[in-house]
Amino acid sequence: MTGTFSFDDALDLQPVDDTVMRGRTQPDWANMVGPFGGITAAVLLHAVELRPDRIGEPLALTVNYAAPIADGEFDISLKPARTNRTNQHWIAELSQDGDIKTTATMVFGIRRDTWSDDESRMPGVPGPEGLTISGPPLIWVKQYDTRYVENPFPTEDSEPSQSSRTTLWVRDANQRTLDFAALTALSDIFYPRVYLRRGDFFPAGTISLTTYFHASGQELENIGGDFVLGSAHANRFADGYFDQSGHVWSRDGALLASTHQIVYFKG
Amino acid sequence: MTGTFSFDDALDLQPVDDTVMRGRTQPDWANMVGPFGGITAAVLLHAVELRPDRIGEPLALTVNYAAPIADGEFDISLKPARTNRTNQHWIAELSQDGDIKTTATMVFGIRRDTWSDDESRMPGVPGPEGLTISGPPLIWVKQYDTRYVENPFPTEDSEPSQSSRTTLWVRDANQRTLDFAALTALSDIFYPRVYLRRGDFFPAGTISLTTYFHASGQELENIGGDFVLGSAHANRFADGYFDQSGHVWSRDGALLASTHQIVYFKG
Repeated sequence: MTGTFSFDDALDLQPVDDTVMRGRTQPDWANMVGPFGGITAAVLLHAVELRPDRIGEPLALTVNYAAPIADGEFDISLKPARTNRTNQHWIAELSQDGDIKTTATMVFGIRRDTWSDDESRMPGVPGPEGLTISGPPLIWVKQYDTRYVENPFPTEDSEPSQSSRTTLWVRDANQRTLDFAALTALSDIFYPRVYLRRGDFFPAGTISLTTYFHASGQELENIGGDFVLGSAHANRFADGYFDQSGHVWSRDGALLASTHQIVYFKG
Repeated sequence: MTGTFSFDDALDLQPVDDTVMRGRTQPDWANMVGPFGGITAAVLLHAVELRPDRIGEPLALTVNYAAPIADGEFDISLKPARTNRTNQHWIAELSQDGDIKTTATMVFGIRRDTWSDDESRMPGVPGPEGLTISGPPLIWVKQYDTRYVENPFPTEDSEPSQSSRTTLWVRDANQRTLDFAALTALSDIFYPRVYLRRGDFFPAGTISLTTYFHASGQELENIGGDFVLGSAHANRFADGYFDQSGHVWSRDGALLASTHQIVYFKG
């Protein structure tokens, strides 16, 4: 369904040679500086998904945001660092005019039937239907239908918060079916926790993002375009940096992804 | 103090050329197959620490365990993917005979005075002094003094546990002073959570490990060789994989590191 949804336009990649694919930033996914980090993570994951020699499904992704991506074309170079019988390790670099802007590592692997247990507990919250759509005033946010349960994006009148936790329902604004690339982008939906704690805004940006994929592709497909619940909090703010950890559940409480990031901030 | 402590022997690296350093596995740090994952992570971090063009202190580290490291020499190749004014992004590969065994990305950065808050809460637990030293029957474990507060390594008589949480005090067995490399190794001290949940043992191993460093180098140095508290839990076990997240605090409750990993298991 490439071309039908803005998300798929942003993921469109053309082969340059055996190791490089070329993409293009999309105005719909613009952040304050460069594209939304989540869409960059998604396009890196999708580059591996497109590789004919790829094994299995995504298990882990780490994206390092080294420099802002300028509007326009970018190249993604991929290296299969190691291929094992049931998993595969990838190194990716996103560059513009030969300048590395983003690096990533990914692990793909084959899922197989084993003992299973979901120890995570989805917070008990009201469903999305009665909640108001809101979000930060950024272009990419319009690509989602986000309904905050707890601690929405601060306003100019906001006071500092004792808790850094935000919980929200989110789905693709066009109800595009969830898949690994879409879940990757979603895992970066949580605005910088320092805004919430301070009730104020500062320059802040993700330095490194890691997402673990718990769900299978089939499990994601079954969710279709429905809402998922995200909840994130920070652990420690110190010396210009903080971490935030988040979890994303299906409506029926299955943990789809665990996501962690370290963020710089000024102020 | 290189050579004084077994930890420093394991971190000893010699330059091969401008981009490659050579190390050697140490028998003291042996795991079931290859070396303890924590020591591999530490030596990768230390390789960047040794680089004369390195900027700042470690902020984030991701290590991907692609294949077992054989006993003997290994080469670490480093690439500074991007150097900014206040931070630097690195890509590392550890190989043996040209075969990539481990990949890593690291972010180093300059810490500076900002608003700070430690939102994490160290569990209220008894101090280490009255607790028994115990741990898994593995060679590398002898390099630590580990005192479990909650859910030690299972025995043959262990029952399944409803909780995947383990909490323990840990220090270097020789009370070597804590630094970023030592904290990196420590961040992998938590045995696979599936052993605890099942009360049984299976083949299991870390696929990818991410650690965020909250403390400054000075803060670590002040801890010296004292105990730190670690606590870890899993979120979801499914289809042969699970994640585990851990936190490491100083005795006075400062969060030193947040650490996350995804682990494969059979059974």
